Amino acid sequence: MNALWSAQAETLFAEIAELSQDPHAGITRESYGAGENAAIAHLSAFAVAQGLTVNHDRAGNVIFQRADDSGEPAIWYGSHLDSVPQGGNFDGLAGVVAGLLCLCRLDQEHVKTHRPFRVLGLRGEESAWFGKSYMGSRALMGGLSDADLKLVNRFSGKTLGEAMQAVGADLSAIGEQQWLIDREQFAGYLEVHIEQAESLERMGQAMGVVPGIRGNLRHNRVQCLGEDGHSGAVAREDRHDSVFAVSELVARIDQLWADGLAAGQDLVVTVGTLGTNAAHHAVSRIPGEVSFSLEIRSLHQPVLEAFYALIQAEIRQIEQRRQVRFEFDTRIDTQPAAMHQPWVDSLVRITREHGWEGVLTPSGAGHDAAVFANAGIPSAMLFIRNQHGSHNPHEAMQLTDFLMSTEVLYQATQELTL
Amino acid sequence: MNALWSAQAETLFAEIAELSQDPHAGITRESYGAGENAAIAHLSAFAVAQGLTVNHDRAGNVIFQRADDSGEPAIWYGSHLDSVPQGGNFDGLAGVVAGLLCLCRLDQEHVKTHRPFRVLGLRGEESAWFGKSYMGSRALMGGLSDADLKLVNRFSGKTLGEAMQAVGADLSAIGEQQWLIDREQFAGYLEVHIEQAESLERMGQAMGVVPGIRGNLRHNRVQCLGEDGHSGAVAREDRHDSVFAVSELVARIDQLWADGLAAGQDLVVTVGTLGTNAAHHAVSRIPGEVSFSLEIRSLHQPVLEAFYALIQAEIRQIEQRRQVRFEFDTRIDTQPAAMHQPWVDSLVRITREHGWEGVLTPSGAGHDAAVFANAGIPSAMLFIRNQHGSHNPHEAMQLTDFLMSTEVLYQATQELTL
Repeated sequence: MNALWSAQAETLFAEIAELSQDPHAGITRESYGAGENAAIAHLSAFAVAQGLTVNHDRAGNVIFQRADDSGEPAIWYGSHLDSVPQGGNFDGLAGVVAGLLCLCRLDQEHVKTHRPFRVLGLRGEESAWFGKSYMGSRALMGGLSDADLKLVNRFSGKTLGEAMQAVGADLSAIGEQQWLIDREQFAGYLEVHIEQAESLERMGQAMGVVPGIRGNLRHNRVQCLGEDGHSGAVAREDRHDSVFAVSELVARIDQLWADGLAAGQDLVVTVGTLGTNAAHHAVSRIPGEVSFSLEIRSLHQPVLEAFYALIQAEIRQIEQRRQVRFEFDTRIDTQPAAMHQPWVDSLVRITREHGWEGVLTPSGAGHDAAVFANAGIPSAMLFIRNQHGSHNPHEAMQLTDFLMSTEVLYQATQELTL
Repeated sequence: MNALWSAQAETLFAEIAELSQDPHAGITRESYGAGENAAIAHLSAFAVAQGLTVNHDRAGNVIFQRADDSGEPAIWYGSHLDSVPQGGNFDGLAGVVAGLLCLCRLDQEHVKTHRPFRVLGLRGEESAWFGKSYMGSRALMGGLSDADLKLVNRFSGKTLGEAMQAVGADLSAIGEQQWLIDREQFAGYLEVHIEQAESLERMGQAMGVVPGIRGNLRHNRVQCLGEDGHSGAVAREDRHDSVFAVSELVARIDQLWADGLAAGQDLVVTVGTLGTNAAHHAVSRIPGEVSFSLEIRSLHQPVLEAFYALIQAEIRQIEQRRQVRFEFDTRIDTQPAAMHQPWVDSLVRITREHGWEGVLTPSGAGHDAAVFANAGIPSAMLFIRNQHGSHNPHEAMQLTDFLMSTEVLYQATQELTL
């Protein structure tokens, strides 16, 4: 194990934790706020002390470069520096620190890479503050609109525009949806991040390679409309029973999900909310109305579409058989993001060379890497084992796992080609 | 068609409707209240004018007898004279009028029956007022407790005891749970009532014979407890998903119900309320808690018990497979009541002799006849076709259907034996 890295990482994590400690629980680094600013300032001081150059883009994101950066199109290590309110210390920060440590070591070992490597410390990834995610990477790539700049921080009441202006962002360039750094500068993007699930913990693996970031397809509200009736006074064949209809549908969805997994599909299905209408349901009344939510996640858009079509076909059958009808609210789509396959393969190989299985861990949650990948920039992600889930004060990462993952990232730095 | 009956019935129904018209909609004859009193007074005046004797039991129920009643154990025509708030005119009243018309005609035609026939106009059948049903017949048979007498009318705020006292009831005898008329006086009970369902309307039958009154088995609240989790970050096999668990269960219950019907069982199953916990459900959260109600109805207690056991067996399997557990509130039982089979057979035969199919129409809702039957008194019921469901102002009965049903009752009067 690299002793210098170990000491530097331990110190950086401890110091930034102290700077962004929440008075009640965990860590709070508000997007475009105090904790995020403190982390950027602290990492910048460290970088300067290590001989790196510190810059900012026009959205307030911080950029660390080697002194001999040629200015040619680069590969960017990146992650974010904000957190959810009362979150953990490693969600985001770990990836920026990993990149920084790699950049420093390239200097120390006088490595000349085939392209410049830079670190991008992104602001504003968490949707907890303004109800929108990836604000820092979206702003950088011309993906924030004027309407987005009017979004309001649910805690401070400030708009996103006001918050970004306070950290020096160029609101007119952002509002015009320009790329704030020349598009060609982005030859690739590499993100290390703690896993938000606990699959690595269950598998006993320190790290995993992300094959892609799942997209999703959602309906916040689907209604099944039947007809209320006296439970003792309507024959089975005359019922328009929305509970039996929805139960059959959801049980079928569950079975179709199992079938999809058995066929090797990447697929997650959730009916998170479900309920009869309390305004007119009763123990002795045939239920005439049930509402429920539907969420389908997959790495692959065709899988999402095919599963959605299967559900629609089931619904048409159930409508005919059970004398009910289904009404859908607006469908909400978030595109999946595929990671760059040659890099995925290389990361699996390098992980194995370090004695781990090189397991593939699809990301259920979103990450800035999805914004880069969907902009056509080759991207890859490495997940670090996390013992206690994400977005809570108990989020956990062992320093040894972090160091081993950073070692894999460092080797990749010298082997990944484009 | 009997022209005298037609005129008498039409007049009685119209006059009593006027006396108990609700200022807002439909008919209101409050249990132990104004509309019920008015109906009793009006029917009593009619009965006296027809040469019948009018008496009351010590619970305020009215009794009509022929002048030559021997005082021997009798067969009682009966039904109730109250209604739900803003209900229909025929629910209850039709059966009392039918009995009265038969009694008058026995006099007119000088028929000597093998036993006396009497009419019992019961009070307080509807649970809408005091939250308890069959108060009149229960009081008569010693089935009301002191606690029942303290029940409060949800509209007037008066207790049942106060309301009964106001109509001259003997509260001490009722509180002591005495039979208010000698048990031996009840050789049998015959009730005509509008059907509360619309099965006769669908079958195109003016009347049906009730084989029994369904009992039921209820849980107001069953909880399925799993575990909340991030929908994108927990593998399918690690979920404790209460929505998928309950959907599977309810879909199985629906299938088991269909199987039971196919096997010839009398069975009705309803899950009337269902819902995730709004305090912590979300579109993107694995649902850790679902509550639902369960109601099983059948003419036969063993069918209720067997179906309940099937559900319990399903639940045990689902608990094991899906890592959830089910918790039940108190089970509430209402016993089914079988009608007297020889009388059921005779009523079917007589109905057929009048050109109808003599269809069997189990009663989903409860009736005073259930109280008599469960006290061991041979009982039978005839349903009259109703076009618009029950307990609403649109409840409907055609006069011709009423007259044909009363004709069947009259013939039965002369043919039923015990």
